[in-house]
Amino acid sequence: MKTLTYQKTISKWDVFEVSIKGPTEGNPFTEQWIKAHFSNNIETKEVEGFYDGKGLYKARFMPSFEGAYTFQITASFIAETEKGTFTVSQAKKENHGPVRVAHTYHFEYEDGSVYQPIGTTCYVWELQNEALQKQTLQSLKKSPFNKIRFCIFPKHYDYNFNEPISYPYEGTPCDSSVITKENFGQFNGRAKGNDWDYFRFNPIHFRNIEKNICSLGEIGIEADIIVMHPYDRWGFSLMNKEEDALYWHYVIARFAAYHNVWWSLANEYDLMSAKTTENWENYASIICKNDPYQHLRSIHNCRAFYDYTRPWITHCSIQRINTYMTAENTDSWKQRFQKPIVLDEITYEGNIQHGWGNISGKEMTRRFWEAALRGGYPGHSETYLSPDNILWWSHGGKLKGESPDRIAFLKSIMYQTPGYGLTRLELNWDDLCAIAANNQTKFLKVQPYYLFYYGINRPSFRTFHFDETTAFDVEVIDTWEMKIKKVGTYTGNFKIELPGKEYMAIRLRKTSTC
Amino acid sequence: MKTLTYQKTISKWDVFEVSIKGPTEGNPFTEQWIKAHFSNNIETKEVEGFYDGKGLYKARFMPSFEGAYTFQITASFIAETEKGTFTVSQAKKENHGPVRVAHTYHFEYEDGSVYQPIGTTCYVWELQNEALQKQTLQSLKKSPFNKIRFCIFPKHYDYNFNEPISYPYEGTPCDSSVITKENFGQFNGRAKGNDWDYFRFNPIHFRNIEKNICSLGEIGIEADIIVMHPYDRWGFSLMNKEEDALYWHYVIARFAAYHNVWWSLANEYDLMSAKTTENWENYASIICKNDPYQHLRSIHNCRAFYDYTRPWITHCSIQRINTYMTAENTDSWKQRFQKPIVLDEITYEGNIQHGWGNISGKEMTRRFWEAALRGGYPGHSETYLSPDNILWWSHGGKLKGESPDRIAFLKSIMYQTPGYGLTRLELNWDDLCAIAANNQTKFLKVQPYYLFYYGINRPSFRTFHFDETTAFDVEVIDTWEMKIKKVGTYTGNFKIELPGKEYMAIRLRKTSTC
Repeated sequence: MKTLTYQKTISKWDVFEVSIKGPTEGNPFTEQWIKAHFSNNIETKEVEGFYDGKGLYKARFMPSFEGAYTFQITASFIAETEKGTFTVSQAKKENHGPVRVAHTYHFEYEDGSVYQPIGTTCYVWELQNEALQKQTLQSLKKSPFNKIRFCIFPKHYDYNFNEPISYPYEGTPCDSSVITKENFGQFNGRAKGNDWDYFRFNPIHFRNIEKNICSLGEIGIEADIIVMHPYDRWGFSLMNKEEDALYWHYVIARFAAYHNVWWSLANEYDLMSAKTTENWENYASIICKNDPYQHLRSIHNCRAFYDYTRPWITHCSIQRINTYMTAENTDSWKQRFQKPIVLDEITYEGNIQHGWGNISGKEMTRRFWEAALRGGYPGHSETYLSPDNILWWSHGGKLKGESPDRIAFLKSIMYQTPGYGLTRLELNWDDLCAIAANNQTKFLKVQPYYLFYYGINRPSFRTFHFDETTAFDVEVIDTWEMKIKKVGTYTGNFKIELPGKEYMAIRLRKTSTC
Repeated sequence: MKTLTYQKTISKWDVFEVSIKGPTEGNPFTEQWIKAHFSNNIETKEVEGFYDGKGLYKARFMPSFEGAYTFQITASFIAETEKGTFTVSQAKKENHGPVRVAHTYHFEYEDGSVYQPIGTTCYVWELQNEALQKQTLQSLKKSPFNKIRFCIFPKHYDYNFNEPISYPYEGTPCDSSVITKENFGQFNGRAKGNDWDYFRFNPIHFRNIEKNICSLGEIGIEADIIVMHPYDRWGFSLMNKEEDALYWHYVIARFAAYHNVWWSLANEYDLMSAKTTENWENYASIICKNDPYQHLRSIHNCRAFYDYTRPWITHCSIQRINTYMTAENTDSWKQRFQKPIVLDEITYEGNIQHGWGNISGKEMTRRFWEAALRGGYPGHSETYLSPDNILWWSHGGKLKGESPDRIAFLKSIMYQTPGYGLTRLELNWDDLCAIAANNQTKFLKVQPYYLFYYGINRPSFRTFHFDETTAFDVEVIDTWEMKIKKVGTYTGNFKIELPGKEYMAIRLRKTSTC
């Protein structure tokens, strides 16, 4: 009988982990296996375990209920099933469970509390040096962001030629000291000089990511993990079917038990020319089968959208469609896909040479408002040139832009909205009107809540036309200056003065029925 | 034999007018007619004349050639054909003849000189008091605008409740003193108290318009005359078929001989619910038949475009399609309609309450660049609230906005472009690149002229990739600050620094082949 190591008590939605010693000879990643079965009186989950190096095999589980659980371990290297029990106590205060899709276009935490994603992107922040990782976490903690997109694999691209702190596989990378802004394209794919064993993972790499997933969870941030991506010089984007399958199983076995994980199959899947739709559907089926918690799943495009109507996709993860408009299409995408619209890339605030990374904070904030008031969930990142070559979009570090504070302001307004999110009401051609998404108010003629946004238009006043029996508290909101001014209570036909400048909003909240 | 009154010499493309005394009894507008036949050794034109009041009948002609002409007059009230001769001298310096469509998407004057329309709109400027008319002409003279849209009929709409200085018909208007911002909708159409004879024109009204068409011509501005429109309290938009036909014939007989006339059948034709497509096609056929000079013809929409593929339409006259984008669709409309794209209304610079009249000068300027670099022709107007209630868009007066100076700057760049206009070259997804529209350069791999515009993007630099044998003079253009900075001569692969701010452009002009 082998000795199992595990906790005796754990909080709901935390990671329960059981370890067992096993063989180190041969290739434990491919020649051995471990499985676990967890159950209480309500749920039963089967999970694949994984080899964590140095003779240690592990299986992880995220309990969704309080009370007594039992588990059983089977493995290629043990003759008999090993068993154990543990107790699940109530969830920690900051852990609301995994995020789920709610009411078709919105989200909520499994405990029923409100979650409206306001994401950012730092593609390989967790593969930078430790001081930078810490700084990123500090920046995130002070930021409005409650979701972050990042990659498991390192990134090779303009402004991203440095080596990651670790690699996902055993082996050695090509020489990166000769890479420049001008020649980096020549290293795309599997550059000369790489020598990797795609059948032997480097557990250190994954442990570091897990540590960061945990840290994110502690500050209320969802980890939108990008499992594959095309910006590669190591060959990780060019592995074969068998290598890919091993990778997917390993990733899911390690990460699925973290409550704040989302699966993004790929960043810009359509630039990964070696992968076909069949491949993506196959990866999706591996997740659906092996992730017992059914974490959120999507796939991010460069140009062509993936078919977001596929049943395994829980929400759209959309990239800008041109240099002008994207957020403005939220309504039509809601209609088309009948899923939450997460606009993970709507162009980044910054000043680099590329059109995807050089809009102003004002334009970014405008795009956020356009998306949010339509009931979509916009995403942020920053690409400011920096002497230290640390760009938030890839490396994390410090936020430098003007939009995060304004995004925080918008987020506070989103969270103040009654109901489960915002949704558009087509009222006037020349404003954007949102109401509270809510089953109760959907068919009301007069809504209890209206949020009007004027974007680049600069009205000096607007007129409103309601009945004489409904009173509204009216506020004029300067979305850029982040100021809310109460202007009074109004009924019937009324006129609200505005300063004739851009980026203004008006909020009406029903106070009473006269 | 009746006595004809006419000039013995006239300049090419000026208005030759012949007058003859006739009856005043009955209704001369409907009971009498006058026709004229003009010819020289090249051209022969038949025109309808018109009754100008006080027993005076007139026929007008615009000669397109120099030398000796003869003419013949027939009329209901003369027994024999009257004849005469006159001589046409060379065109005045400022008169380049009528504007014609050239090279499918562009324009030029009949004398072959460059004309790129940069229009503005002052709907009823010529129906305001004389001092204001003068001020408008002075403003126009200093402005970049070389086309102006305005109506023959007065306008009834928000900010437009005052009476015009004259009416097109004999009769009396309804009492306008009781009209307010709130109740003006109740006066739409044919308001109570109007008493017009739609068969008796008021020549004073038309003479004033002609005087202003002349004044515009003298300062190089095309008069884009809006013959019908929906914003009416006098009933002019609700006349019957017979009344309309009489009006069209009268308008054409009076105005067609002015070289700088364009016909806009209507402003927002689709809001004139009393008119059908059959009506519009009928008016078009009256113009085609009765305007011997085939002045440019179009019709302006509110929502649905008129079918711009109709053969009588010489160019598109487009209104903004939403609050965000319009200019950006220029390419697709060029493809679809195969005609010049004139964007007569792309939202006005201003601060009124309506979304069609409250964008910033920056946004207006951006829209102009977006349209112009695609080979379209954007239009301007202004709607700034003013204590004197004089808004450029309707009344003319003074230009107050920030865009006219920037439009002048853009216009100078447009006119500096070799060839007959700009056209888009799809080179990069994240810039807007224009080249010189020119039969010679259309198929060249390396163009002699490139104009790159970055709009709301803020690149800190851009890289260019040409061969080593072509040298370009490179200029960095700040389209808002209106500054052009020469940065040097470059070949091959080169990088141009930019200030990382919005609204920048780069111009490359081939200097030599090394």
